[in-house]
Amino acid sequence: MHPRPSGIVTLLTDFGLADPYVGILKGALLRAAPKVTMVDLCHDVPPHDLVTGAFFVGATIGRFPSGTVHVAVVDPGVGTARALLAVAAHDNYWLGPDNGLLSPLWQPEGREADVRQIDVDHLGLRPESRTFHGRDLLAPVAGWLAGGRFGFSALGPRFAPQQTLPAQATPRVVHVDRFGNLITSLRAEPFATAGGVRLGGRSIPRHGTYGDVPPGSLLAYVGSFGLVEVAQHGGSAARSLDLARGAPVELLGP
Amino acid sequence: MHPRPSGIVTLLTDFGLADPYVGILKGALLRAAPKVTMVDLCHDVPPHDLVTGAFFVGATIGRFPSGTVHVAVVDPGVGTARALLAVAAHDNYWLGPDNGLLSPLWQPEGREADVRQIDVDHLGLRPESRTFHGRDLLAPVAGWLAGGRFGFSALGPRFAPQQTLPAQATPRVVHVDRFGNLITSLRAEPFATAGGVRLGGRSIPRHGTYGDVPPGSLLAYVGSFGLVEVAQHGGSAARSLDLARGAPVELLGP
Amino acid sequence: MHPRPSGIVTLLTDFGLADPYVGILKGALLRAAPKVTMVDLCHDVPPHDLVTGAFFVGATIGRFPSGTVHVAVVDPGVGTARALLAVAAHDNYWLGPDNGLLSPLWQPEGREADVRQIDVDHLGLRPESRTFHGRDLLAPVAGWLAGGRFGFSALGPRFAPQQTLPAQATPRVVHVDRFGNLITSLRAEPFATAGGVRLGGRSIPRHGTYGDVPPGSLLAYVGSFGLVEVAQHGGSAARSLDLARGAPVELLGP
Repeated sequence: MHPRPSGIVTLLTDFGLADPYVGILKGALLRAAPKVTMVDLCHDVPPHDLVTGAFFVGATIGRFPSGTVHVAVVDPGVGTARALLAVAAHDNYWLGPDNGLLSPLWQPEGREADVRQIDVDHLGLRPESRTFHGRDLLAPVAGWLAGGRFGFSALGPRFAPQQTLPAQATPRVVHVDRFGNLITSLRAEPFATAGGVRLGGRSIPRHGTYGDVPPGSLLAYVGSFGLVEVAQHGGSAARSLDLARGAPVELLGP
Repeated sequence: MHPRPSGIVTLLTDFGLADPYVGILKGALLRAAPKVTMVDLCHDVPPHDLVTGAFFVGATIGRFPSGTVHVAVVDPGVGTARALLAVAAHDNYWLGPDNGLLSPLWQPEGREADVRQIDVDHLGLRPESRTFHGRDLLAPVAGWLAGGRFGFSALGPRFAPQQTLPAQATPRVVHVDRFGNLITSLRAEPFATAGGVRLGGRSIPRHGTYGDVPPGSLLAYVGSFGLVEVAQHGGSAARSLDLARGAPVELLGP
Repeated sequence: MHPRPSGIVTLLTDFGLADPYVGILKGALLRAAPKVTMVDLCHDVPPHDLVTGAFFVGATIGRFPSGTVHVAVVDPGVGTARALLAVAAHDNYWLGPDNGLLSPLWQPEGREADVRQIDVDHLGLRPESRTFHGRDLLAPVAGWLAGGRFGFSALGPRFAPQQTLPAQATPRVVHVDRFGNLITSLRAEPFATAGGVRLGGRSIPRHGTYGDVPPGSLLAYVGSFGLVEVAQHGGSAARSLDLARGAPVELLGP
C-alpha cells in the first residue's frame, strides 16, 4: 500500500540560506537517520508565504523516487495548537503543518491522500523549542520514516486536515520565477487548441519554446510544471508586462 | 576519548553561493574522502564577519551526530602566519583558522576543548594557493579525519589558540535572522522569571511563541538557540524597532 | 581510456535558488540513479550568462575525483535544434548544451576532449517539456553515466561542437567574485616576474596574499583559479576601482 522508503528526504522551507537554520535542521535529521540522502527543494519561499510554499509542494508531485519523504516548513503558527501532518500520497510522503501548505496533495478533489496527525507524545518527542518544530519534531520524524524505524501508519491516527488553501475561482498567475516567466494556473489540455492567452491587456500567441520567437517577443507555452507560462525571449515577461502573482489570465480562441 | 568519525562534514563559510568556491571546496573534500556526507551549514556569513561566523559555530554545538567534522572558513588572514586549528569538543570536531572564529568552542571559560595546530608540513600538504586554504588545506584534512585516514591526535600538536573574540560585557543583540527576529545574548534561565526585556527604548513582554500574541505585536521568548529573542508576530522586529546587531538589551523585572 | 564513474554528479546552472528547479532536477537524477552523490557547483550564474557559466566550467577542471560527471545548464536555446553534448576530458565527464558553455574543455586549442552528441532518441528519452531539458534529458543521462548504466561511448556519436565562445584578444577581468576581487585572464607564469598589473588607470603591485599589505591597499596576486587577481585588503577592489567584468588589464614590467 504505502511505498517502501527510498532513504531520500527533501526539504522545503522559508528559512532562507543566510541563517544556519537549514543546516541545523539537517543535523537533527542526521541524528535520527545518519544515512539519509538530503535534497534541498527550496529554502527561499518568502517568509510565511503559504501560497508559494503550496505551489512548490504541488510542483514536486511525481518528481522523486517512490517512497521519498518531503519535509515542508512554512509555519507562521509554529508552537500553537495547529496539528502536524504526515501525508502518504502520489507514492511519496509529506510532513508539514496543518495550515494549507500541503493542500495540493488532496486538491483538486478526488486526489487520494492518506492524512495522519503526527502523534508527538506517542512518538516520544519533546520539542526543545516552541519556535523550531522543523528541527525538533519534523526532522526526527522524517528521519525515522525515511530510515525505516517507523512505518507511516505508526506516525499517528487518521486526521481530516483543518486548513486548505482556497482554490482559485479564475485562472491567474500563480508564480513568477527567476527568469521573469509568469506561470499561470491554466492547464495544458485546453491550451492545446487555443491561439494563446490574454494577460495584462495583451494578447500573447502560443508557441513551443523561447527560441521559436524573435528575441524580445512574448510567447505563451506549456512550461515544465505542465502549466501555461508567459515568457519573453531573452528577457523578463514579468518586467515587460509589469505583472506579478495574482494577475488574471484567460485563454484566447483558436 | 575522541569520538569515532561519523562520516559527516559540515561547511560554514563567508564564500556566498554566487561563485563556485563552495563547490570547488567540496571537490577537494571528495578527493580526500569520496564517501563523506556533506552538509552546508551556511555560506552567507557576511564577508570576513567573524562575529556572525563565531555565533553560527556556537549554534551548531550539540546539533550533529557524534564524530561530525565541521569546517569553518571566515579567514581574512588567509595565507599569513595565522595557525589552522583542529578542535575536539562537545563530541564533534572543528577545523578553522586561529582568528577567533572557533572561540565559542572554549568559551565561556571551563568548556573543555582539545585544540591542535594542524601540522601542514607533517601531513604532506602543500597549498596550491595562498588565498584558498579552505580548499587546499582544510578540505583534505576534514576528509582524512571524517574518512578515518588520520585520527584527531595525528593532525598536530596541542596548541593554545592565539585569538579569542572578546566576550560581551553587557547583553546585546547578537544576530538578526531572515525573519527580522532579534536574537540576544540573554540566556533562558534568568528570563524564566522576568516580565520581558527592554530593547530599543521599548518594554517587550515575555511570551511562549509568536501565535500567543495578536498579529503586529512584539514579544520576547526563548528561541531555538536557547537564547532570548524578540520578534514581531507576522512582521519584522528588526524593521519595526529599527535595530541591528549590537543593540543593548536588558531583562525586565517579574 | 575513459575513467570509471565516481558516482558523483555536480550541477552548474543559472536557475537560482528561489525556485524549485534545482530540487526538481535532482529528483530526476535520483530517479535515474538513487545512490548518486550530488554537489551544487553554483546555481547563481546570472540568467543566460554563458561567459560566466563557461568560466565556472573551466574553473572545475581537475578539482573533482576521476570519473565525476558535471551537468552544466545555461541554455537560452532550450527546446530548439541545438545539440546536447557529452564530453570526456580531463579525467571527468561534462554534459550540457552546444552553445559555448563547455568550450573551456577544448580550449585553448590542443586540449584533448572526446565530444559526443547525446542521442536522445536512441537512449529512449522523451522530453516531457520543451523548456526544461536539464530535468528531462541531462539529469537522466547524468544518472545513467554516473551510476554505470551506460558507458560514455554509448551516449551518442562523435560530434564537432558547433559553438565555441570567442577567445579574448587581450587580457581582461573575467569574473568579479563576492568579495569584490577582480579575477583576470592573466596566467601565473608571466606574472611571476612582473611588478604588478595596470588596471583601471592604476598600477597595482604584486604581492602574495591579502595580509601582505596594509588594510585598504590594493594588491595583485595569483589567486585560487591560477589566474592573476586584484583585491583590496579588507575591502572590495571592484567597488574601489569601480570596475566590472571586461575591464582591460596589463602586466607591469619587473
